Amino acid sequence: MNRLLKLINESNEIAIIAHVNPDGDSVSSILALGLALRKVNKQVVTILNDSLPKKLFFLPAKEHLTVFDVKKHSKFDICFVLDCGSKSRVKNGEKLFEVSKTIVNIDHHISNENFGDINIVDLDASSTSEIIYNVLENDLEIPIDRDIATCLHTGLMSDTGNFTYINTTSRTYYIASKLLEHGVDIEDISYHLYQNKSLNSIKLLGNVLESIDFYLDKRLAIISFTDKQLSKYNASYLDTSGMIDYARDISGVEVAITLYEFEKNKVKVSARSKKRFDVNYLTNQFGGGGHKKAAGAIIFSSLKEAKEKLVASVEKSFR
Amino acid sequence: MNRLLKLINESNEIAIIAHVNPDGDSVSSILALGLALRKVNKQVVTILNDSLPKKLFFLPAKEHLTVFDVKKHSKFDICFVLDCGSKSRVKNGEKLFEVSKTIVNIDHHISNENFGDINIVDLDASSTSEIIYNVLENDLEIPIDRDIATCLHTGLMSDTGNFTYINTTSRTYYIASKLLEHGVDIEDISYHLYQNKSLNSIKLLGNVLESIDFYLDKRLAIISFTDKQLSKYNASYLDTSGMIDYARDISGVEVAITLYEFEKNKVKVSARSKKRFDVNYLTNQFGGGGHKKAAGAIIFSSLKEAKEKLVASVEKSFR
Repeated sequence: MNRLLKLINESNEIAIIAHVNPDGDSVSSILALGLALRKVNKQVVTILNDSLPKKLFFLPAKEHLTVFDVKKHSKFDICFVLDCGSKSRVKNGEKLFEVSKTIVNIDHHISNENFGDINIVDLDASSTSEIIYNVLENDLEIPIDRDIATCLHTGLMSDTGNFTYINTTSRTYYIASKLLEHGVDIEDISYHLYQNKSLNSIKLLGNVLESIDFYLDKRLAIISFTDKQLSKYNASYLDTSGMIDYARDISGVEVAITLYEFEKNKVKVSARSKKRFDVNYLTNQFGGGGHKKAAGAIIFSSLKEAKEKLVASVEKSFR
Repeated sequence: MNRLLKLINESNEIAIIAHVNPDGDSVSSILALGLALRKVNKQVVTILNDSLPKKLFFLPAKEHLTVFDVKKHSKFDICFVLDCGSKSRVKNGEKLFEVSKTIVNIDHHISNENFGDINIVDLDASSTSEIIYNVLENDLEIPIDRDIATCLHTGLMSDTGNFTYINTTSRTYYIASKLLEHGVDIEDISYHLYQNKSLNSIKLLGNVLESIDFYLDKRLAIISFTDKQLSKYNASYLDTSGMIDYARDISGVEVAITLYEFEKNKVKVSARSKKRFDVNYLTNQFGGGGHKKAAGAIIFSSLKEAKEKLVASVEKSFR
């Protein structure tokens, strides 16, 4: 990747952005890369055009995150696009790409369209954070410090389900081992990611678990979130994050789906599978995608119709 | 630890046992050590005087587990006692210890009483499985194979909450990285440990989450399991395993306790904490113990009285 090092050496103004609907891996990756490039005296703008999920407020350097503003950010030598399968997954990306000379695409999604001028797409990496570690260590040789390590470790934990998903490799653990040598406080990360749930979200979970629907011999579980249910617990759709795993983890269930009609006739679909079922293939049929075991889509129809389409589609795959 | 190697070289008949109420780390440790010692042609008896939790049925060599029977097992050169703070935590251990020439105590609990003839007690180890890895690698030089690695990895995952508890160190991740090189199928382990829950246990969880009690400014959360509630979901106390974490993970909660009156005036107490609170100290006051963030006890009183005593005791610690 000497091409990358050469490019960075010749550049000064650098933007870093990731996909819409920020998650632990995407935010951690942009913050970590931003911190690293600042260490070698680059002018870095880490862009987040969404609001930061509350559980990620603890991340070092989160105060560096800023919304893209074409008046302030009129020109970049490089725009790093992290954890994004395609340019369309970048929120308000058009102007940013226009003012950026070179696009560097760093990602681990199978759906990646190699849209960059430089593409570092590693499908064997657990997470974009894992690739950033490799890039810093092997290509850029920028020393990792405690803050960078804290971000990268958060990314690893987030995208591997705490090292339990199949994307976790010997290399992933090796990197985690190295990151801990830099003083990562794993208890603090766990506290913020997992041990700081609102009482309402726990009660909402209780309610949700008692109302899972089953189809196709209980091989498919569907949770439909309603605004009525959410408002009862003073919760938002964001608070439902992770609840799908409970449906997936039931014995006999092969696919779990959550549905949420966020606007009339716009249904947000999340899908998770275990063992062999491919939810990337499933959501592709509705214009979405992701990974084999975790993917999403938006279906433009009523909730009822979306559910029927999904059940029919899963049934076909079961045959 | 040449003393251990020497002892093993001079021995033939070896028993391996762990604590009552088997968990992922204790069972994995005895199976892994048993497999390793069989590889160097020892006569090994891996003893489990309880029934094996269903989620651990997938472990390699589980068919080696056997109940201690003084008629069959009349003499051992060594008895390895794993993951046990004291001899009293071994179920039906008296006769076994009587017929064993040398006791080797391998453990990571702070409460360990060094009751063995040889004591390998490492308080910095995440789990007994971690110590077994070290012993095999450094002291006994017995090569690790896929089955041994699968057991040890299961032990690591179980005792570290998937590498999220504070006991997780750089070394823990390093060992995990090495174990994966032996072909551990992490997806399969996750499937059995986490993705194979009964529908009833998920519905029971839903019910439990809606009925958590709070005390002391919501800094203490208590869940009382009742037989009525369990039978409604056709569940047993074993099915409640892990539910305490939901109470602990609520924002503001510092200590979570579950109570279950398993016999009249015998209340099983589990306690978990986050950040600073020490539940080992808390349960010590009731004759129990464990770790700083995870401990248990049995209180000989009614459920109501046990609850009052615990609330009072936690309140004192908060002062």
